[in-house]
Amino acid sequence: MSNDKKKNKSGVEDLPLMQKIVALCKRRGFIFQSSEIYGGLRSAYDYGPLGVELKRNIMNEWWRQTVHEREDIVGIDASIIMSPRVWEASGHVAGFNDPLVDCKLCKSRFRADKAPQVGIDAEVEYRKQGKTIVGVAERGYVCPECGSVELSEERQFNLMFKTDLGPVKSDDSTVYLRPETAQAMFVNFLNVQQTYRLKLPFGIAQQGKSFRNEITVEHFIFRSCEFEQMEMEYFCEPEESDTWLDYWKDQRYQWYIGLGVRPENLRLRPHDSDELAHYAKACYDVEYKYPWGWDELEGIANRTDYDLRNHQRASGKKLTYFNPQKVNPETGKPGMHYLPHVIEPAAGATRSVLMFLVDAYDEEPPSEGRKDGRVVLRLHPRIAPIKAAVLPLVKKDEWLTGKARDIVKRFWKNSVNAFYDEKDAIGRRYARQDEAGTPFCITVDGQTKEDDTVTLRYRDDMRQERIKVDEAVAIVEAKTRE
Amino acid sequence: MSNDKKKNKSGVEDLPLMQKIVALCKRRGFIFQSSEIYGGLRSAYDYGPLGVELKRNIMNEWWRQTVHEREDIVGIDASIIMSPRVWEASGHVAGFNDPLVDCKLCKSRFRADKAPQVGIDAEVEYRKQGKTIVGVAERGYVCPECGSVELSEERQFNLMFKTDLGPVKSDDSTVYLRPETAQAMFVNFLNVQQTYRLKLPFGIAQQGKSFRNEITVEHFIFRSCEFEQMEMEYFCEPEESDTWLDYWKDQRYQWYIGLGVRPENLRLRPHDSDELAHYAKACYDVEYKYPWGWDELEGIANRTDYDLRNHQRASGKKLTYFNPQKVNPETGKPGMHYLPHVIEPAAGATRSVLMFLVDAYDEEPPSEGRKDGRVVLRLHPRIAPIKAAVLPLVKKDEWLTGKARDIVKRFWKNSVNAFYDEKDAIGRRYARQDEAGTPFCITVDGQTKEDDTVTLRYRDDMRQERIKVDEAVAIVEAKTRE
Repeated sequence: MSNDKKKNKSGVEDLPLMQKIVALCKRRGFIFQSSEIYGGLRSAYDYGPLGVELKRNIMNEWWRQTVHEREDIVGIDASIIMSPRVWEASGHVAGFNDPLVDCKLCKSRFRADKAPQVGIDAEVEYRKQGKTIVGVAERGYVCPECGSVELSEERQFNLMFKTDLGPVKSDDSTVYLRPETAQAMFVNFLNVQQTYRLKLPFGIAQQGKSFRNEITVEHFIFRSCEFEQMEMEYFCEPEESDTWLDYWKDQRYQWYIGLGVRPENLRLRPHDSDELAHYAKACYDVEYKYPWGWDELEGIANRTDYDLRNHQRASGKKLTYFNPQKVNPETGKPGMHYLPHVIEPAAGATRSVLMFLVDAYDEEPPSEGRKDGRVVLRLHPRIAPIKAAVLPLVKKDEWLTGKARDIVKRFWKNSVNAFYDEKDAIGRRYARQDEAGTPFCITVDGQTKEDDTVTLRYRDDMRQERIKVDEAVAIVEAKTRE
Repeated sequence: MSNDKKKNKSGVEDLPLMQKIVALCKRRGFIFQSSEIYGGLRSAYDYGPLGVELKRNIMNEWWRQTVHEREDIVGIDASIIMSPRVWEASGHVAGFNDPLVDCKLCKSRFRADKAPQVGIDAEVEYRKQGKTIVGVAERGYVCPECGSVELSEERQFNLMFKTDLGPVKSDDSTVYLRPETAQAMFVNFLNVQQTYRLKLPFGIAQQGKSFRNEITVEHFIFRSCEFEQMEMEYFCEPEESDTWLDYWKDQRYQWYIGLGVRPENLRLRPHDSDELAHYAKACYDVEYKYPWGWDELEGIANRTDYDLRNHQRASGKKLTYFNPQKVNPETGKPGMHYLPHVIEPAAGATRSVLMFLVDAYDEEPPSEGRKDGRVVLRLHPRIAPIKAAVLPLVKKDEWLTGKARDIVKRFWKNSVNAFYDEKDAIGRRYARQDEAGTPFCITVDGQTKEDDTVTLRYRDDMRQERIKVDEAVAIVEAKTRE
């Protein structure tokens, strides 16, 4: 049946890139639709055996470089359900809204600010899809589904998920699922600073789930209601905040490059003054060239003292930092209490998973050394779900399988995630590992019996070389750290 | 002021153990009350810089040993909000209830099944607290707060948090925060099995947050509304399930022992037939001797095919496993479709954090080598938040601080979490690291300049030895893996 489908020269069905990625994710066990046997749930996804390792590796790399390998940053892990007063003070209860509109004709529901705008590029794109605008668009936009101008009033829809804590439902019982991890760092600012007696500048970092009741979900896992963040709040002297914004935008850009992202697909874009959030003095987006165009991956914002000031006011608790050296302009003497300013690099972990998959995806036509084309995920070894697959050439030879399992255990002993596979011919096993992004395959064969060597096969260029069994772990470790 | 408080011979204020643990957690930055500046939120806690590392280490150890270092188990990471049909099929919507009662006298609200029962041990304990039972307890229990028998009717309260997905609230929009991670493994059973072509027996593992709207929260982080789980579903031949239950109860017991838990504080307790959950054929609890007595840490249950059968019925999707070898008794020929049985080791990650803290807590009176008493957390090096603290003896000597920072970087390069500290006298720094559970301190001093050696100080016995700088990383790594 699949022979009827049109294939390209790499042997891959000729589909838009995103469809290929989604199919690969399901086929290899990266990402499944959530609750699939029940028809799925809007925008919810489950990470399969490879996906969970990829996500963990990305997040662990961030944690290692952001928290462990710096003297000036510590981590926290706060609860998802926080006091509702946090979200009142932060402005989310009053203002974390999207403008929601219903189409009276086709009954679809959409965001006014994302609808096709009459008279500009969006309309051109819209007409290209073969859709027609019906009537005069007095409001400047039309229904994205049917082009109608018969629309309900815009109403403000708050994106926070609400639930009730405690057995009796009342106004007092309302709590929210956090829409961002950032506020926990502000609320815990003094506890952390005092416990560790941290001096400016210092950062507090957190990873975890956040929830937004998005009206529009799109692009696979790119915009979903449940997602994972990697955020850091860097507290600094107010007069140094511009310098630190510069520093962090470069650091964060380099983090992606260091994990192998192609520079031509990555850019830093400063926000125009009219697109800046109300809490930000300046902001850069790290943008990636997704299959649908440049879009956000991470934001690095100068939030000034906006958040600490809000929480100080709302809680009635002093959140100032004391600097015994700084000269207080009011007294002319050293010793000053003040609110630090904050630079926030806020990265999407879920978006990073998608970005790394897209960036790593590659197809190769048949070549001299290989009669079939192949799909290969060129993931950086540091984030690849499996670092080394160990393959006995013949499944029925117990010496080979025993030796291969022995090698796998050597990797495990060094905390390197290795994978044993004996199913199918060696070529198909290589192909599976290429699609899984495994950078190194180690094959145990007849020659191993004679000289204790194995074949090391490189994912990216399919080069093979003979190495000693005793060197296998060290070689893979060294190449992973490169 | 603290001098007025009565101290024991280790120099620690004389308080019940749990109070000391809570105080240590706050003092050293393990665990803070959530949203503290707003007066906190019922049973919600935030992990500080040390707590987040401890929790991560415990969970990573579980993942490494359960998923990475076994051929037969793979991991997943499912969404917290799943299709509501999952929870209808699992029985949680209809049956995940606690019996809730209001006291008409003091207005407190409590669980009927946890209230002091008249005529048994609980009553004795209750009277010991100086409380009196008021009236005749026709229902067999009394108000835990005031002893009143004037109580409201019992009503069933569902423990799942509800919220609404999508911009319009309706019956169709209701979704739940998962009350356990387990169901995602059943719902994804076939996707995972087929992707990896797994053969029985095999397991699917997951870690993550779950939520229960508990009527009674208690014992610090032990019972809270938001908590973290480490669950694994092990699918096996129906006739082998008893054997695998035996296997897993031993494995899981040994896992805790291997991470240094004192055997006298840990036990396996089989459930009596009358306490078994309706879905379980047999169950063991791993129990720990907490300061309030023996209580649950993990449950290992034989869930038979209860869950797969429920989801197969409710979804209308076949969830059977195909075994080409097994002889079908109906046909007498090889080749059979059937539902596997399931052994579930379900551990509480949040409870583990508390358990490891309690088990590691120790106090020592002054000794020959030390004039002050001390508090020390004897955490296993594998789960200790910081593996090695590197301390320049004198802060003002730039050679020493530079050398210490150089050593810290060597640890980082090998992915060992090391910590640089130059604040205060060396004795106070050691004391801080003892309370943080750091197994090794490395001190850089004048002699280092001469012979490139440092002092390695052991947390547990405060023994000190001189080692070469070049050996520091390898020694700490080896002792951590021991």
